[in-house]
Amino acid sequence: MIELPGLIDPHVHVREPGQTHKEDWDTATQAALAGGVTMILAMPNTKPPIFDESTLNLALEAARAKARCDYGQYLGAGPANALEVARHARRAAALKMYLDSTFGELRLDDMTLWLEHFRRWPGPGPIVLHAESRSMAAALAFAQMFDQPVHIAHVSLREEILVIREAKARGVKVTCEVCPHHLFLTAPLTCAEGVTPGRSEVRPRLATQDDINALWENLDVIDCFATDHAPHTLSEKDGENPPPGFPGLETLLPLLLTAVSEGRLTLEQLVQKAYHNPRRIFALPEQPETRVFVDETDEYELRAAEMKSRCGWTPFEGWRVKGRVRKVILRGQTVFQDGSVLAAPGFGRDVRAA
Amino acid sequence: MIELPGLIDPHVHVREPGQTHKEDWDTATQAALAGGVTMILAMPNTKPPIFDESTLNLALEAARAKARCDYGQYLGAGPANALEVARHARRAAALKMYLDSTFGELRLDDMTLWLEHFRRWPGPGPIVLHAESRSMAAALAFAQMFDQPVHIAHVSLREEILVIREAKARGVKVTCEVCPHHLFLTAPLTCAEGVTPGRSEVRPRLATQDDINALWENLDVIDCFATDHAPHTLSEKDGENPPPGFPGLETLLPLLLTAVSEGRLTLEQLVQKAYHNPRRIFALPEQPETRVFVDETDEYELRAAEMKSRCGWTPFEGWRVKGRVRKVILRGQTVFQDGSVLAAPGFGRDVRAA
Repeated sequence: MIELPGLIDPHVHVREPGQTHKEDWDTATQAALAGGVTMILAMPNTKPPIFDESTLNLALEAARAKARCDYGQYLGAGPANALEVARHARRAAALKMYLDSTFGELRLDDMTLWLEHFRRWPGPGPIVLHAESRSMAAALAFAQMFDQPVHIAHVSLREEILVIREAKARGVKVTCEVCPHHLFLTAPLTCAEGVTPGRSEVRPRLATQDDINALWENLDVIDCFATDHAPHTLSEKDGENPPPGFPGLETLLPLLLTAVSEGRLTLEQLVQKAYHNPRRIFALPEQPETRVFVDETDEYELRAAEMKSRCGWTPFEGWRVKGRVRKVILRGQTVFQDGSVLAAPGFGRDVRAA
Repeated sequence: MIELPGLIDPHVHVREPGQTHKEDWDTATQAALAGGVTMILAMPNTKPPIFDESTLNLALEAARAKARCDYGQYLGAGPANALEVARHARRAAALKMYLDSTFGELRLDDMTLWLEHFRRWPGPGPIVLHAESRSMAAALAFAQMFDQPVHIAHVSLREEILVIREAKARGVKVTCEVCPHHLFLTAPLTCAEGVTPGRSEVRPRLATQDDINALWENLDVIDCFATDHAPHTLSEKDGENPPPGFPGLETLLPLLLTAVSEGRLTLEQLVQKAYHNPRRIFALPEQPETRVFVDETDEYELRAAEMKSRCGWTPFEGWRVKGRVRKVILRGQTVFQDGSVLAAPGFGRDVRAA
C-alpha cells in the first residue's frame, strides 16, 4: 500500500446550480473521494454562472449542505463585473476567465474586457484562464503588463507547453495544468466501446500524438494535474449537439498510477503536481490528518458502472489500469473505503471560509 | 504653400520581384514621389519572398536600377530562417513577421516558430508584425519576454489600439501604424463609383465605425501613418477571388491634409507620424535638402486616372480632398513638380547602404 496526501483537483465542474441531472455537489464530491481527491475547486460556468455576491452565496450554500470533501468556488469574469469579483476575491478559489469557447454572461471576446480584471483582481487565488493557442499567449502579455500571476487551464498543445516553458524561463508569473485526457487520448476515441463521435467532444479538443508527446517531454513545465471533470449524461453525449466535456475525478489517479508503474512518471512528480503545486499556486490550507491509501499492485479495468459520478460514463471505459484507491482519510475521519463513500453530505469545508 | 519634410512610408508592397504587372520599383516610387513620400520601406512578400541573402540581393538590385525615391527592403520571417535573416539584418529595413493571413514561405502558424526570431533578431529595424486582435496581444507577450521592440502594422480595431495604449503605459516596447483606409473607410465601400465587392477586400478588413472612432480618439497612441500600398489591377479586384489590398501612396497626403483642414488632425501630428516617428522607430538616415511643397488650399477630386501607380484604381475614387502636392525636392534635386516625376530610375538610394 502506498500512502499519498489528499489530492487537490483545481478544475471541477460540479454542475450545481442549474444542471443537477448531470452532477451535483453530492455526487461530484463522492466521485472526488472515490478518486483520492479530498479538495476540489469548482468552476463558475453553472446556470446561473457564479459571478457576483448572490450567485457565489448560492453555490456556497449548496456546497455547504451537500459536499463530502473540501472545496473552493471560483468566480467567473464577465464583461462588467471586475469590481464585484475583486470585492469577493477572498471568498473565491480564484478568478476564471474564459477567453475562448464559452457562452452567455462569461463571454470575453473583446480584449478590452480583460483589462479591468487584470488591473483589479487581488488574489489570493490566481487568474485562471481558458485560453488556447494565441489566446494563451495574449494572456501572457496581460500577465506581464499587469504583473498578475496567471494559471493556464488544460494545456493541450505542443506550442502551448513550449511557449509556457520559455515564459517561465524568462520570469513570467505563469503556471499551468494538464488534464489526463490530453495526456492519454487522441481524437477520435478508439479504445472505448460503442463510441459515438459526441463522446470525443471536449474543449480544448483532443490533440495529436505530437502534442501528447510534447506534454510528456515537458512534464517539468506542468505544474498541476487537473481533471476538468465536466460530466454530461450519456444521452446528451450520444444525442444531437453533444456537449463538450469528460468526467475525470475517478480516473485521474488510476491513470497516473499506471503511468508511474510504467516508469513514465515518478510518484514524487505525481504528488508534486496533484498536491504540493496546486496548494501553493492557489494558496490553499493544509488538510490535517488527511491521507489516501492506494494499492499500487491492483490491476483492473475502468468501469463507469462502478463510479460515483452521476453522468454514467467515462472516455476510459475498459482501460486496463494498475493502482486502486483503497481508503481515504480526511481530517482524521475515514471518508472512503473499498468502494464506499463514508463521509456524510455537508462534511466538506469551504477552503476560503477561515 | 506649406513646406513639409519628405514623408516616410514604412509599409509599401512594391510587387517586384514577381508581380510587375501590378507595380514595380519604377511605378511604386513614382507613386511615392507624387504623394510627397521620399522614402519607402518595401515589404518582403513578393514572388519569391525576400527571406535570405540571395532574395534580398534580388530585390535590392531591382531597386537600385529602378527606384526614383529612397528605399529600404524588409526581410521576411519564415519557419526556419531566423539565423539567416539575423545575419543580414543590417541590410534590411526591418524584419516582417506574418502572424495572420499569409501564404507559402512566410507562414508562421505555430507560435514555436516565433521564438527563434524573437531570440535572434538584432535590429537596427524593429520586428514588424501583421498580427490582428489576439495575435497582436500574443506578439506583445513575445516582445516582453524577449525585450524586443515590436511595431504593429496596420492597426484597425478598437481593442487593438486600446491594448497598445495600455502596453505603452506599462513600458512595453511597442509602436504602431495606422493606414488611411482604416481611418476613413468602413466596409462595404459606398463612396466610390461602380464598386464591386472585391474592391473592399483588404487585410486587415475594413472595420466598423466604432473602430474608426476609436482610432481617431487615440491618435496619440498611433506612432506612424503607413499606406500598406498594396496594388492589384482592376481586373484582379473585379474578378473572381479578388486579392486583398488597396493602393495608397498617392492618396495618403491629400486625405490627411483634408483631415487637417477639417481640424481632425494638426499639421504637427501629421509630420510627427509620417516623418519623425518612422525615422526614429526604423533608425532611418536623414535625407538632406529634402522638402515637400503642398498647396493646402487646392480642392479637387481624387482620380486614379491621374495617378502614377500601375494598378489603375483607388478606393478613394471621386473623394473630394483639400491639399495637393506641388513639388518634391529630394537631396537637392526637384524630383516631382505639378504632376510630373522628374527623378530618373536609379536616383533612389538604399537607406541601409551606408
